[in-house]
Amino acid sequence: MLKIIKIGGGIIDNPDELNSFLKTFSAIESPKILIHGGGKGASKMLQKLGIEPNMIEGRRVTDQATLDVVTGLYAGNINKMIVSILQQNGTNAVGLSGADGNVIKGIKRPIKTVDFGFVGDINLEGINIDFLQLLIDNGYTPVMCAITHDGNAQLLNTNADTIASTIAEALAQKNEVELNFCFDKIGVLRDVNDDSTLIPIINKELYQELKEKGIIFEGMIPKLDNSFRVIENGVKNVCLVHANNINTDIKTVLC
Amino acid sequence: MLKIIKIGGGIIDNPDELNSFLKTFSAIESPKILIHGGGKGASKMLQKLGIEPNMIEGRRVTDQATLDVVTGLYAGNINKMIVSILQQNGTNAVGLSGADGNVIKGIKRPIKTVDFGFVGDINLEGINIDFLQLLIDNGYTPVMCAITHDGNAQLLNTNADTIASTIAEALAQKNEVELNFCFDKIGVLRDVNDDSTLIPIINKELYQELKEKGIIFEGMIPKLDNSFRVIENGVKNVCLVHANNINTDIKTVLC
Repeated sequence: MLKIIKIGGGIIDNPDELNSFLKTFSAIESPKILIHGGGKGASKMLQKLGIEPNMIEGRRVTDQATLDVVTGLYAGNINKMIVSILQQNGTNAVGLSGADGNVIKGIKRPIKTVDFGFVGDINLEGINIDFLQLLIDNGYTPVMCAITHDGNAQLLNTNADTIASTIAEALAQKNEVELNFCFDKIGVLRDVNDDSTLIPIINKELYQELKEKGIIFEGMIPKLDNSFRVIENGVKNVCLVHANNINTDIKTVLC
Repeated sequence: MLKIIKIGGGIIDNPDELNSFLKTFSAIESPKILIHGGGKGASKMLQKLGIEPNMIEGRRVTDQATLDVVTGLYAGNINKMIVSILQQNGTNAVGLSGADGNVIKGIKRPIKTVDFGFVGDINLEGINIDFLQLLIDNGYTPVMCAITHDGNAQLLNTNADTIASTIAEALAQKNEVELNFCFDKIGVLRDVNDDSTLIPIINKELYQELKEKGIIFEGMIPKLDNSFRVIENGVKNVCLVHANNINTDIKTVLC
């Protein structure tokens, strides 16, 4: 089983949590891939450099100055910090942006009403499966940041969840794949304030029922819709899990 | 023949020169590795961030703030810029720090009289030859920045010339290797102001003679001493060449 694990900015901003997670991640014996988001460092760096956030409709626009900051931070500082900690823990990690090995070729998001700048959209056709397979088959662990490229020397800021899903679908063509999204919750809870109400397994029928009862709502719906699509496209399981629990059964498994 | 080419900061600071060089580099048909220095961006960024340069005996100390800036810039911005331009030119480049694939494990320079901070010393034993060979044998082109690691989660700022020499020696164990150092001159000149006085080939005997006559002097001596050591350790040729001329015979070949 190939385990693909996505961590968000919350862990990255907390050195103790990150170290603890990377120890746990290193203990996974099967082949594995880590995909990481960015955390709050980009906003802090932009502020330090006196670059005003460029916001449209409440969303940040990735202009050239922002792209430079996120490229340095995500592909440089954060990616190499994670890789060096994994090396310390005995995992032979290889940090990658989407440009490296042409591993993710995307396109700049087309302008409809708003130009969000250097933001990348990606799909299955843009994944260099052979390169990831070469690394995995030789015992290396890809560690991917959320920067892709367009094949025309343009780097693109890209959603880390989308990278995780797309990589999982691509590799499911040749591997049995489990995709894990790490959250600050232990999984999907019937009562968000009570960990004892964890729902361990959700299939499509139960998902419909939970949506109708309002137990799964708002921001969780697009995440779960996307997860079930990934499963339809060949990924064996998608897990929603706390970063501390990736090596345990405490999680919600979608199947 | 495996060609290992080192470029310095001058090219990196000049977008037109860099683009032109990377086109030429992409046209090299044999397996190849690129090693790049950093340019003036680090000093500019430190200044923007209001970080005072920490200098001892006229040399910059790599303190934590400086290490963070050079890691973001060298392993992030510059490395991914180069990789994305190479992809545009049809070279399947893979950007690497020394932590990636454990490709260069160094040690923090021991403190004698001065602590230069997070600066790495490296040697042959620290090179993961297998990983570089895996990439090369599968058609990928490693692009290496001058950041290494110590295996204990510490990143280290490392001399790019030393990385180029050490990688060349390591790979010479299994490959016929040519090492190219790119300069702003076309090679070693009898008269530094006259390109027509290029010395095309220098062997050890001629090197002694040129040193005695004062034609090779000062900063060039350690560079050439090092180059002849690399040749003694199995590298076929070391070339001193202008970045524009890497695909021509206009160069000084040490042998």
